[in-house]
Amino acid sequence: MDGVTLHDPDIRGFASDNYSGVHPEILEAIAAANGGHQVSYGEDVYTEKLQEVFAHHFGRGTQAFPVFNGTGANVTALQSMLPRWGAVVCSSTAHIHTDENGAPERVGGLKLLTVDTPDGKLTPELIARQAWGWGDEHRAQPLAVSITQSTELGTLYTADEVAAIADFAHDHGMKLHMDGARLSNAAAALALPFRAFTRDAGVDVVTFGGTKNGMMFGEAIVVLEPSASDGLPFLRKMNMQLASKMRFISAQLIALLEGDLWLRNAFNANAMAARLRAGIELGIEDGSMNGVSFSQQTQANGIFAILPDGVADRLRADFRFYDWDAARNEVRWMCGFDTTPEDIDAFVAAIARETAAA
Amino acid sequence: MDGVTLHDPDIRGFASDNYSGVHPEILEAIAAANGGHQVSYGEDVYTEKLQEVFAHHFGRGTQAFPVFNGTGANVTALQSMLPRWGAVVCSSTAHIHTDENGAPERVGGLKLLTVDTPDGKLTPELIARQAWGWGDEHRAQPLAVSITQSTELGTLYTADEVAAIADFAHDHGMKLHMDGARLSNAAAALALPFRAFTRDAGVDVVTFGGTKNGMMFGEAIVVLEPSASDGLPFLRKMNMQLASKMRFISAQLIALLEGDLWLRNAFNANAMAARLRAGIELGIEDGSMNGVSFSQQTQANGIFAILPDGVADRLRADFRFYDWDAARNEVRWMCGFDTTPEDIDAFVAAIARETAAA
Amino acid sequence: MDGVTLHDPDIRGFASDNYSGVHPEILEAIAAANGGHQVSYGEDVYTEKLQEVFAHHFGRGTQAFPVFNGTGANVTALQSMLPRWGAVVCSSTAHIHTDENGAPERVGGLKLLTVDTPDGKLTPELIARQAWGWGDEHRAQPLAVSITQSTELGTLYTADEVAAIADFAHDHGMKLHMDGARLSNAAAALALPFRAFTRDAGVDVVTFGGTKNGMMFGEAIVVLEPSASDGLPFLRKMNMQLASKMRFISAQLIALLEGDLWLRNAFNANAMAARLRAGIELGIEDGSMNGVSFSQQTQANGIFAILPDGVADRLRADFRFYDWDAARNEVRWMCGFDTTPEDIDAFVAAIARETAAA
Amino acid sequence: MDGVTLHDPDIRGFASDNYSGVHPEILEAIAAANGGHQVSYGEDVYTEKLQEVFAHHFGRGTQAFPVFNGTGANVTALQSMLPRWGAVVCSSTAHIHTDENGAPERVGGLKLLTVDTPDGKLTPELIARQAWGWGDEHRAQPLAVSITQSTELGTLYTADEVAAIADFAHDHGMKLHMDGARLSNAAAALALPFRAFTRDAGVDVVTFGGTKNGMMFGEAIVVLEPSASDGLPFLRKMNMQLASKMRFISAQLIALLEGDLWLRNAFNANAMAARLRAGIELGIEDGSMNGVSFSQQTQANGIFAILPDGVADRLRADFRFYDWDAARNEVRWMCGFDTTPEDIDAFVAAIARETAAA
Repeated sequence: MDGVTLHDPDIRGFASDNYSGVHPEILEAIAAANGGHQVSYGEDVYTEKLQEVFAHHFGRGTQAFPVFNGTGANVTALQSMLPRWGAVVCSSTAHIHTDENGAPERVGGLKLLTVDTPDGKLTPELIARQAWGWGDEHRAQPLAVSITQSTELGTLYTADEVAAIADFAHDHGMKLHMDGARLSNAAAALALPFRAFTRDAGVDVVTFGGTKNGMMFGEAIVVLEPSASDGLPFLRKMNMQLASKMRFISAQLIALLEGDLWLRNAFNANAMAARLRAGIELGIEDGSMNGVSFSQQTQANGIFAILPDGVADRLRADFRFYDWDAARNEVRWMCGFDTTPEDIDAFVAAIARETAAA
Repeated sequence: MDGVTLHDPDIRGFASDNYSGVHPEILEAIAAANGGHQVSYGEDVYTEKLQEVFAHHFGRGTQAFPVFNGTGANVTALQSMLPRWGAVVCSSTAHIHTDENGAPERVGGLKLLTVDTPDGKLTPELIARQAWGWGDEHRAQPLAVSITQSTELGTLYTADEVAAIADFAHDHGMKLHMDGARLSNAAAALALPFRAFTRDAGVDVVTFGGTKNGMMFGEAIVVLEPSASDGLPFLRKMNMQLASKMRFISAQLIALLEGDLWLRNAFNANAMAARLRAGIELGIEDGSMNGVSFSQQTQANGIFAILPDGVADRLRADFRFYDWDAARNEVRWMCGFDTTPEDIDAFVAAIARETAAA
Repeated sequence: MDGVTLHDPDIRGFASDNYSGVHPEILEAIAAANGGHQVSYGEDVYTEKLQEVFAHHFGRGTQAFPVFNGTGANVTALQSMLPRWGAVVCSSTAHIHTDENGAPERVGGLKLLTVDTPDGKLTPELIARQAWGWGDEHRAQPLAVSITQSTELGTLYTADEVAAIADFAHDHGMKLHMDGARLSNAAAALALPFRAFTRDAGVDVVTFGGTKNGMMFGEAIVVLEPSASDGLPFLRKMNMQLASKMRFISAQLIALLEGDLWLRNAFNANAMAARLRAGIELGIEDGSMNGVSFSQQTQANGIFAILPDGVADRLRADFRFYDWDAARNEVRWMCGFDTTPEDIDAFVAAIARETAAA
Repeated sequence: MDGVTLHDPDIRGFASDNYSGVHPEILEAIAAANGGHQVSYGEDVYTEKLQEVFAHHFGRGTQAFPVFNGTGANVTALQSMLPRWGAVVCSSTAHIHTDENGAPERVGGLKLLTVDTPDGKLTPELIARQAWGWGDEHRAQPLAVSITQSTELGTLYTADEVAAIADFAHDHGMKLHMDGARLSNAAAALALPFRAFTRDAGVDVVTFGGTKNGMMFGEAIVVLEPSASDGLPFLRKMNMQLASKMRFISAQLIALLEGDLWLRNAFNANAMAARLRAGIELGIEDGSMNGVSFSQQTQANGIFAILPDGVADRLRADFRFYDWDAARNEVRWMCGFDTTPEDIDAFVAAIARETAAA
């Protein structure tokens, strides 16, 4: 039986960077890793090779633990960084708080101490609102900070901002975790190597996102500071994140990271978001779009905009995307590795059509 | 960059059916499902189609929930079947007890009540040893039974044996879960449709194994009795088993189950195990093999044998496999969808060579 | 050996209502319940009698489950009200969020969705900020609201305010839990029977606080709406809150609630807080106290005040109490069942002395 | 209101040593600790003094953490000794396995690896059956052994037997926990100071039982080897075992342990069990009792006997006790600090009456 295509591959939208499929080079890498036998559960040559690939990007001594998905990566990473009585300071918009159905609490046994932020970004001052009470047994002990790069609101931390957070965290006995579901988008946008805004900036453990960067599935917990993490092999297994045929995650990650596929994919996603923003800004400026504004900066591959009443629903007739805050007509548009200039231009035209003055 | 092959695909062994790679038809199905956008997290057309495919095999009303791996499938399935105070009666050789690093307890919050068995198979009499104490708040409440088909010891339950267990369980207010990591091997060996020894025999929830049956990754929680399971969408997410690009698990499962790939793969694995057993039995009979015996029946794709001192290590110079109980020289040999007659014959010859009389 | 007193019973302060000892009538009740044998784990005549006592206060059909402490009561109650994927909407100042070291998350597997409040009190509007997303598997499902009566900030819900919250909760498929660590103080302050602002107002489950009301130890989970709670006997045991010699918790609760001891104790605590507040208000008014203000209303037995720099520390030389928000010189003073007018007057005099104009 | 006695204090039975009430000297100690204010949550002078009392019995450097009950003590102690991936080797009759409704698994996140024993006692050989697989991430890691002293079957470990287990455990990288719910009975029966068969024998952490030894409630986690336990203050709080008015647990423990109350109480319980056993042995020998036998040795305060059909139920008309294994007419009789020779003699007479030859 040949594989059967059930969907229309020509349809794309702006709903999420995980609506995309798999980059062809990733599929090739999977095929090349196929055949014969390899030791399961990570003792294969691909996972061995992967260590070098990650060390190249993040520095010597880096340890990478492939897992299935981002929630598994975040929860397992944080659990490895914290004692049972630990708490994690994070933004109230952090994925670990809003989109993982309590997995950090329920599976990880972790407490999250959230801080409201205007743009999804923590600062030492904001962290300080929750970073207190050490030694008081009544309070879940804030022993880690988790930041997301790029953030859930499409914004970016500079390397200096990360370093300031790392210094603050370490000065207060806390470790620093970075949720890097879109780490490649951040690196591409910052035009920096990964290590410049992670290891060199003081991040202890990163969760590196492969799925949104063009893989089929798979992320990696990347330990930059070995003393900051304990027991990952055991935690990964008991958290049900240990793939038996791990070679197929590792081969994907190698394909992404050994060459520049990660960068090409992330660069395209960012560039398409920039093109979309520019198109709208032009429309606002020249009066062809009315009542449209932006609620966040566009620094990676996500755009947050406010639309006039009814416009979002009319646009959705042709382009799928999500409301972010329906109460104020705020929407989120994500671009992916497979978004094309034609996709953007058609969407800009549609926005102009729906927001033309009466 | 083209995909790079780092391993020697000509090397195969008998260590585990997850040392194998991916069946080519599965890879084709993945490629066919690629391209364009599909709603993530299971609202795609492949996952929709998958419901029909499972209903075909297991009966109308069957609900299938794709997940990443077997541990995730088992824990999430059992959690959906039990209240927080529930316990699961299982064999002391059950995978959930021996090989999941406590995930049922630690992630699922479940207690396992184990029973020793000679062959990995529970019976109503054996279950009764732990099935008592309902209403006593001091005792974890035995509200589910979990059996493995085919078992971790390579044995099989007949449909009647399953039905007897289901009747006993239901008569005592317990639900019946079947760990079907090798369900296809069981169906092939029993020469029965899946539903004959699952739904029709009274099983409430099955975890269907895809990975060992030729997939890259992916299993499914298959709910046969909807009243026996609650909250699976939420539990799957919080247990970190919800794939964003789920179409690629569903497409694999469709490729496996829509035609007869599942059967061809399982049949081959079983047949190769039978060939290996027959080869050794012949060797024992004709005196060319000495000191070799079997510790379990060979009913599916696993063989359990006792070897003379030192033989296992010498065989392992050329063929990878695991000790099962090193203290008594017991070893386990697994055959997979890709095991060939030549593999078997070479192995039989090696066994004969190493166990020839002095 | 006679009992030995190691501390000075004449010293009292304003740190917490659990610095107090045990009311003499409670000790008498314990002694009266002593001797001979009683079935352990709650099948004793005192626990049986307790059901009537609670039914008298909360209405027919009320079920009371004695437990050891408030954290145990809250976590066990909420767990009984929620599925594994449930979340609890609560104030960010709720004890369950700030003072239980993550027990709701770590032991209960619950997610808390917090809302900032000016005075520790939720309203339907505030609850609505977190009450959304039902059916979305990515979001912990908000299926209960927890309010504290009287609140951690010394404020009170009126019966109408509770009813408005209950209506909102029930209209949205959520249950209503009331943390009643100081429920008696609330009843005394509102001059209402318990049921008027609990059961009649729509509360489903209350945790009734005995310790701060004059008991040695012991609280009760009080189920007002049986359909809102499931499995409490099992949950209490597995949460390590099942007392073997339960008669001694039940006898204390009977002593508290069968007559009016609960009211006398709570009334005194409230009255002393009012006396303290009045004394300070007078001092502010007549100019004998300078730079002193209140940060919350005083509606039960706790007072929250802002003091000039250095005053808190000087007062603490003679009277123990805690900072509430040291950054803004906010302190908390609690009165108990054993606080005397003399205690208050001495403290007021000290405050006047330390805040007299230069 | 005076305390009201609802039960008949003259009735006693043999069901459990927690059917008893509180020893009068314990009540005196509670009364003496009453009055005035003491810092809550353990910073009181009684808890401070308690450290000396435990150090006297268990050696310098001993740390004692009062908790509410035995399940809480066991789970919290074990959690402090193990990483998240740890497992505990214990007897299949251990209280932590059979009578705590999965609290070690559900609250502690611990896996129990059980071993069948003839008499409730582990040995190095028995422990070895589960003590293997270190480093294998698929297996819950056996990093602690838990033994019960005296055991759930009324038997005792000698100091040498404990030492042999401790040596075995430590040689294999495992810690040793002792569930001492009846530790005083063991010390009394062995005629040894506590430390001789705990600290000096290599036990790392003991849970000391107060409730069955005559207290109202309260146990203590006793850390003998500080490097074997981490985070107890935090774990005790998050496990809901931190008493606010802790002085009343500590004062009870001081009353028990500062003088010889612990010994008098335990000695009486043991002596009464011995008297009961002797009475029955005499009856068997002289033919006045028929069909009665013992299923375990009587080394502390519990007796396990096999009775002729129907005898147990007839005896229960006057004396409450439990079946142990109803299938084989095995019953358990427990003696307490308050059991009298008259109780025993009346019971022996009843047994003789019910088992007299036809």
